[in-house]
Amino acid sequence: MAEQASFEALEELMMRQRAGRLFDSREVEDSLIERILGMATRAPSARNAQTWRFIVIRDTETKARLGSVFDELGSQMYGQGAPTRTPWAEVPVLIAVCSEYAFGEDESGRMALGASIYPAVQNLLLAAHAAGLSTVLTTRWKRREPELRPILDLPENVGIYAIIPLGWPAETLGKNRRRPVPEVTYRERWGRNW
Amino acid sequence: MAEQASFEALEELMMRQRAGRLFDSREVEDSLIERILGMATRAPSARNAQTWRFIVIRDTETKARLGSVFDELGSQMYGQGAPTRTPWAEVPVLIAVCSEYAFGEDESGRMALGASIYPAVQNLLLAAHAAGLSTVLTTRWKRREPELRPILDLPENVGIYAIIPLGWPAETLGKNRRRPVPEVTYRERWGRNW
Repeated sequence: MAEQASFEALEELMMRQRAGRLFDSREVEDSLIERILGMATRAPSARNAQTWRFIVIRDTETKARLGSVFDELGSQMYGQGAPTRTPWAEVPVLIAVCSEYAFGEDESGRMALGASIYPAVQNLLLAAHAAGLSTVLTTRWKRREPELRPILDLPENVGIYAIIPLGWPAETLGKNRRRPVPEVTYRERWGRNW
Repeated sequence: MAEQASFEALEELMMRQRAGRLFDSREVEDSLIERILGMATRAPSARNAQTWRFIVIRDTETKARLGSVFDELGSQMYGQGAPTRTPWAEVPVLIAVCSEYAFGEDESGRMALGASIYPAVQNLLLAAHAAGLSTVLTTRWKRREPELRPILDLPENVGIYAIIPLGWPAETLGKNRRRPVPEVTYRERWGRNW
């Protein structure tokens, strides 16, 4: 049994988590995916409800259909010149993250659901990164949910919160870049310098 | 410089992330908090917008006021017998996670915001756990946001997404318990066994 990661080792790992959109064609084994999903489920959820459901997609036609919705949304959001770097149909695996509307439809309920899904999504991304895999988190699907239902057989009471392309990287990425903590942190109240 | 955490070491770490609500009175240094917040900011956000803002709260009166809102919400949600185990005023540090409404007010925009805040929240929780600290993620605040504004000087265009009590643990917690992956995973389409 491995020892648990030290603070320093976790920090190094987190500093190198980047979105990767270019994958080589090597297969990603079911056993590795299952272990990564197990790590995803270690995240907290409101009332420990664990409403996350994962769909692991390898079928080329399904990937192409999802990719075409993604690229259309990209054009709507960013114009025709939008970069669409992810070659959806060739991505080895897509993982769709879904959930029932478990905490009510009001703003508070939606927030509880987001707070119960995206921590698991981050565990998934970080676990994949630790395994040497590339991923990219895509969340623009909400607007086209009715169209996704027949592609993925989603029931009416289930929403889609993310689709994560995953595979072995075809590019090398360095550290991520972020604003320094004092620029995003206050002390005691909003606006008071850290 | 540390090596980055291995997959196995990360898995061990994630398996032991639990909500902890009982803290001892030892101080948590600013330097450690700043480093943990730095790890939080390593999470992805839509368009790398990094709209997360953190308020680090040590003031006893502020903690008590927030705690009283929290416990009132608990009574409303779970009835008078609701367990209110977190002794808010005595928690060493509260970290409030806020953000501007950066992606629009429609459901898609709210989702993008949740997807851009809660991964950072999970990094924060996991980093604190790796440092040996206890935390508990609380997100029920949305319903009482207007009341929180004057307590934290929050501007009108800023929402609150989580408050995280944090301190050195006064209890020992074992591994977390989750449903097995095959119970929450489908293959290709909803409903098809993994």
